[in-house]
Amino acid sequence: MTELSIWTYDWVPNGPRGFVRDLRLRWACEEAGLAYTLRTIPFDDRETNHLAQQPFGQVPFLKDKELEIFESGACLLHLARKSDKLMPRDAVGEAATVQWTIAALNSIEMVSVPWWFLKITGAENNNLTGWMTSRLGHIERVLREREWLAAERFTVADLLMADVLRVPDVRAFGNRPATEAYISRVTDRAAFKKAQADQMAHFEAADKSRATVSSK
Amino acid sequence: MTELSIWTYDWVPNGPRGFVRDLRLRWACEEAGLAYTLRTIPFDDRETNHLAQQPFGQVPFLKDKELEIFESGACLLHLARKSDKLMPRDAVGEAATVQWTIAALNSIEMVSVPWWFLKITGAENNNLTGWMTSRLGHIERVLREREWLAAERFTVADLLMADVLRVPDVRAFGNRPATEAYISRVTDRAAFKKAQADQMAHFEAADKSRATVSSK
Repeated sequence: MTELSIWTYDWVPNGPRGFVRDLRLRWACEEAGLAYTLRTIPFDDRETNHLAQQPFGQVPFLKDKELEIFESGACLLHLARKSDKLMPRDAVGEAATVQWTIAALNSIEMVSVPWWFLKITGAENNNLTGWMTSRLGHIERVLREREWLAAERFTVADLLMADVLRVPDVRAFGNRPATEAYISRVTDRAAFKKAQADQMAHFEAADKSRATVSSK
Repeated sequence: MTELSIWTYDWVPNGPRGFVRDLRLRWACEEAGLAYTLRTIPFDDRETNHLAQQPFGQVPFLKDKELEIFESGACLLHLARKSDKLMPRDAVGEAATVQWTIAALNSIEMVSVPWWFLKITGAENNNLTGWMTSRLGHIERVLREREWLAAERFTVADLLMADVLRVPDVRAFGNRPATEAYISRVTDRAAFKKAQADQMAHFEAADKSRATVSSK
């Protein structure tokens, strides 16, 4: 058993595979060379069955010896303190990394996830479209002028921002070439590919054990 | 001139007064006993006139000697490292504080702000109401069992969560007595009252100078 455990669901439907947020933590561990054990909670009745571990009934959460942390953003900041591959150690580089990590969560994802939710639930007029256009336009403008968000190198802020931006409906929203190039640059990293393949394999294995159970 | 500068608008209309997010930073400085200088940028044309300082055209941002930081959540985490009044120094207390700070931004505000935006823009069906009900129910359940979110004491996570929850439309959403008691407990603090009064006075002074200019 390694010191770090990443908790996710035992199974999910095909739709969210490759996007379940344990991927953010797996990816950070791959970048930093940190070993982890994968642990699971049941997907069924997820909104009520693990509130003691995660008060919003979500995944992922992280255990690190005596520490238990939920919120993928908080888990990433915790992992980032373990390796300068995720966050520089100087005050300016660290502040920029934290700033862009929070920007991914609170200036982009705070708009893109509700916008996407309105889209998939068939809202007649998506009142968030103007806000979405504005925010994605601002980040496109930033990415026209730099390869990485903070400290002129890959950091955990890029990991998170790229994960927020690579959602297919978000990617399809308008013509944003600098953002597209950025998503490709970040997700071409070996650590992302390994983390995503591992998540896909985890849920595929769960399909097989579900099939075995149901055929008995 | 103090080392810390908090940047906000020179003026805003009456509606957002008492809620402009420089208040979060003022409040944190009051809690920690940190002196700051208030600096302003023009409210007019705000979406394009300070993109070099804040890539989403928003306030606040913070300057600390050579550091410049935007995103109120990132500024709060930066200030929290200056004083254990905002965040405990032990690993467990710090992780819990960061976790609940991120939860305020990404599990509550990510739902409450878009829900509020749909409400004020008159969306016929607010498709975010179910999500809002669920998230506010979860936080109510947490607050039934504890006075403070992290480390059994006031931290910057309470400052931020209470600021997210005290928005009048959010407060009026359902009957949530533990959340109401929590908001009162946190905003009864002298540091909040001082920060809010200072923000109100700043914008009232701006009204007077605007009136002087227009009567010339």
